[in-house]
Amino acid sequence: DGEKSGNRFLDSLIKAGFKGKIYSISHTGEEISGLTSYPTVSSIPDVVDYVIISIPAQLTPDVLDDCARKKVKAVQIFTAGFREAGTLDGRQLEDEIVMRARQGGFRIIGPNCIGVYNPAINMPYGPSGLIGEVGAVAVVSQSGGHAGKLVAGGIARGIHFSKVVSSGNGCDLEGTDYLEYFASDPKTEIIGAYLEGAGDGHRLFTLAREIACQKPLVIWKGGRTRAGASAAASHTGALASSDITWTTALRQVGAVKAGSFEELTDTLLIFQQLGKFTGNSLAIISGLADGGGGDSVAAADACLSLGLEVPPFASSTKSLLESFIPSRGSILHNPLDISQAMSNPETIKRAVEHVAKDPGINLIMVIEYVDELTQFATWQDAEAINDCFIALRKQGKPIVMVLPPGLAEDKRAQVERELAQARIPVFPSLERAAKAIANISWYYNFHSK
Amino acid sequence: DGEKSGNRFLDSLIKAGFKGKIYSISHTGEEISGLTSYPTVSSIPDVVDYVIISIPAQLTPDVLDDCARKKVKAVQIFTAGFREAGTLDGRQLEDEIVMRARQGGFRIIGPNCIGVYNPAINMPYGPSGLIGEVGAVAVVSQSGGHAGKLVAGGIARGIHFSKVVSSGNGCDLEGTDYLEYFASDPKTEIIGAYLEGAGDGHRLFTLAREIACQKPLVIWKGGRTRAGASAAASHTGALASSDITWTTALRQVGAVKAGSFEELTDTLLIFQQLGKFTGNSLAIISGLADGGGGDSVAAADACLSLGLEVPPFASSTKSLLESFIPSRGSILHNPLDISQAMSNPETIKRAVEHVAKDPGINLIMVIEYVDELTQFATWQDAEAINDCFIALRKQGKPIVMVLPPGLAEDKRAQVERELAQARIPVFPSLERAAKAIANISWYYNFHSK
Repeated sequence: DGEKSGNRFLDSLIKAGFKGKIYSISHTGEEISGLTSYPTVSSIPDVVDYVIISIPAQLTPDVLDDCARKKVKAVQIFTAGFREAGTLDGRQLEDEIVMRARQGGFRIIGPNCIGVYNPAINMPYGPSGLIGEVGAVAVVSQSGGHAGKLVAGGIARGIHFSKVVSSGNGCDLEGTDYLEYFASDPKTEIIGAYLEGAGDGHRLFTLAREIACQKPLVIWKGGRTRAGASAAASHTGALASSDITWTTALRQVGAVKAGSFEELTDTLLIFQQLGKFTGNSLAIISGLADGGGGDSVAAADACLSLGLEVPPFASSTKSLLESFIPSRGSILHNPLDISQAMSNPETIKRAVEHVAKDPGINLIMVIEYVDELTQFATWQDAEAINDCFIALRKQGKPIVMVLPPGLAEDKRAQVERELAQARIPVFPSLERAAKAIANISWYYNFHSK
Repeated sequence: DGEKSGNRFLDSLIKAGFKGKIYSISHTGEEISGLTSYPTVSSIPDVVDYVIISIPAQLTPDVLDDCARKKVKAVQIFTAGFREAGTLDGRQLEDEIVMRARQGGFRIIGPNCIGVYNPAINMPYGPSGLIGEVGAVAVVSQSGGHAGKLVAGGIARGIHFSKVVSSGNGCDLEGTDYLEYFASDPKTEIIGAYLEGAGDGHRLFTLAREIACQKPLVIWKGGRTRAGASAAASHTGALASSDITWTTALRQVGAVKAGSFEELTDTLLIFQQLGKFTGNSLAIISGLADGGGGDSVAAADACLSLGLEVPPFASSTKSLLESFIPSRGSILHNPLDISQAMSNPETIKRAVEHVAKDPGINLIMVIEYVDELTQFATWQDAEAINDCFIALRKQGKPIVMVLPPGLAEDKRAQVERELAQARIPVFPSLERAAKAIANISWYYNFHSK
C-alpha cells in the first residue's frame, strides 16, 4: 500500500490545484489519476524540483540515485522502516539514503514523514487535499499526524499558515534546519514546532534564542515522560532528554513552551490574531445571555492562577456602568457579569465600550455561550452582540473570546468564523484561553526587557 | 422581567411534561401559559408542595407568609438582590426570609438560584425544558449557570442524573445540606459539587469524609484565587478561603478535587461509566485511521505526568500482535500505534482483544479521530471498529475513548452517543481523559486502603 499512499498524494495535489507541473512515476507505465506515468524520474522530459517517494524502504536508495541524475533539489520520503524501526537494517538503510543525498546534491525531507503544506502554491498536506488561506504561521512537526491535525484544525480556527512541514526521522534536514529556514523566511512571522528530540541540542537552543528575539517561537516537546520518550524513540527514533532541561532552556532563550497539541495550536492562534501584546491586565465579561456569575468566578480563577491580573475597574468606569445597567443579579465590577443587560445589543455595546476605555485594562476576555444566546436572544441580536466586539477589535482593542462547545455547533462554528476573520481568537474553554493569553503576555514581556 | 422569568419556568415545566400538578400565581388573575392563575398560593384549592418564586426581592417576605399558610414544604427563590448584592438592605432581606421560613416550617432553595433538575418526575432545570435519562449522578452547584451547563452538557455526553440543584446564596439549605441529602438518597451513587464557600467548614469536611467512603464525591471549588474569590463574594456572597486548605482537606478526606467545569463533568462521567476501577496501568491504542505515532507519545506523556502507568505489554501479547500486524510504520508495543492494520475492523478487533487479555493492563485508552476514520475508511468499517470496543466493554473491560473535535461533528456526536450507551466514557482531548482516569484511579485506590 505504499503505492496506494502514493496515489493519495497525487490525487490530493490534483484536487488542491497544485500550481506546478505534476508527473507520476510507475515502473509499469500505467496511467495514474489521469496522468501519463514515467518509468523513472530521469525519464521525465522536464526540470524536476521535488520528488515524493512512497515505495518500500529497501527500494529507496536506487530511486535516490535516479533523482540525483535528474538533479532534483529535494526528495520527500513518506516510506517508513528506517531508523525508527529500531533494527540494524533500518539504521543502515537510513545512513545509506543520507549518503546518496549528499552525493546527489539534494536534500531529504523525512523519511517516515508526510511532507509539506504550502498554501501559496496550493501544495496540500499529504493526502488531505486541503488548502486554507495563506498567512505567516510556519510549523515544523516531527509527527506527521500532529502536523495534519494542526493544518486541518488550524484552518478551521482561522490560522493562516505560510508553511507546515512534517520532518519525520529528519535524517538529513531535521527540526533545527527547518527552524533556521523559517527564521530567514520573510513570509513567516510566527513559528511553531513539535519536536521529539533536540538533535544537536546546543545548536537548537542557540538558534531558538536568535529566533525568539525576532519572531514568536512556540515549541511543544513530545516524549517528556519515560513512556512518552520510549514511544518517541519508536516513532521517529528521537533520543530522550529531561523535561526540566527543556523547560528551563526554552524559558531562558525566550521561547514559549507548549505542553499539549491544544496549547501549541491555541498559542499560535493568539500570536497571529493579536499581534504584539505586552499587557497583563484583563477585563472579563460574562452573562451575554443568562447569568454569568459562575463563569466570572471560573474565569478569574483561571487567569490569576496563571499570573494574569483581573484588576478592579476605574471608579469612573464603574459609575458609568451603574448609570445604565441594574446592579441586581449582575456584577458591575471586574469580572463583569452583564446579564442584567438582558442580551440587549445596545446596552452590551455601551458597556463594552466603557470597559475598553478603562485605562487599567489591556485585553477583554468575553465568555459567550452560543447555545444560550440562540435560546434567549434572536439570531439578529446575537449577531449584533458579536458585531460590537468585532467593531472594537477593528479599532485595535485586544479581545479574546471563549465559545464553549454545545448543541448549536453549526451556529457556533459560524460565529467562530466571523470572529476569526476580525482577528478575534476563539477558544473552547476558559482555561485554554487563559493559557494562551498568559503565553503571549509572557513572551512579549520577556522580550520587551 | 422577574415575571418573564416566571413564565419561562412555567413553560419549561409544561414542555418537559412535569408529572405533578402545576398552578400559576398572578395577582392580576390573568391566564398564564394556558393555566388558570390564582391570586395567592393559599387560594389554590389543593395541596401545594413546592413553590417557585420569581418576583422582586422586597415582595418575597409576604409571599413566604402566604406559603406558610398553605403549609408548603419547600420554596425555590429565583430572585436575586439578597446577600450577594453586598448591601445592608440585601443582607437584612435575606435574614428576613430565613426567619419567615423557620416560622413557616418550610425550607428555602436559593435565593438567587435556578432550582432543581429531577428527571424522574420530569422536572426540568430552570427554563431549559430539557429532560434526560434518569440515573445516579447528583450535583449541587452554587452557580446556576454551571448547573445548567452541567445538565445540558452532561445529558449530551451520556451522564444520567438523579438530581441536580442550584443552591444560590444557600440562605437556608446550603451546599452541605444537599450533600447530606445526596449521601442518604438511595437513588444517588455518585455526587458532584460546585462550591464557592464552605459554609461551616468543619461540618462540610466531616461530612465529605463520611460520604467519600460510601459514594464517589467530586468537588470543584470556585474562587480559589484573589480575583475569583472577590467575584464569588458578589456572585453568591461566599467568603474566601485558601486554595491550599481546600486541596489538602479534600485529599485527606478522600474526595476528588476538580479544578474546572470540564474536570468536574469529565470525572462524574468516568465514575458513572466505569463504576469501580482500582487499577493504574493503561494500554493506549492510536492509529485507527492514519498514523498514530505522535498521539502515542502525547497520550503517554499525558498519562505518566499524572502518575498513571503505561507499562510494556507482556512478551506473549507482543508476539501475538507481531504475528498478524506488520511492524513497519506502526508501533507494536504500549502505546500501540495500530495504523498498519489499515483501518481493517477484523485486524483491529483481534489486536484489541489481545491487548485486553494482557494481565498487566487495567484499562484501555483509545484515540479515535472520527474525521480521519470517515475519510480513510467506510462508515460501515468505522462502525465495525467502534463495535469491537463496545463488545469488549460489554464484557466488562474498562475502556475510555478520546474523540477530538473536528469537521465531521455530526458523525462524531453519533459515535459518542453509541459509545456512551455502551458505558464507554468519551473525552475530547488526551489530557482531559488522562485527568479523569487519574481521578477515578486515585479515588478507588485511596478507599481500598
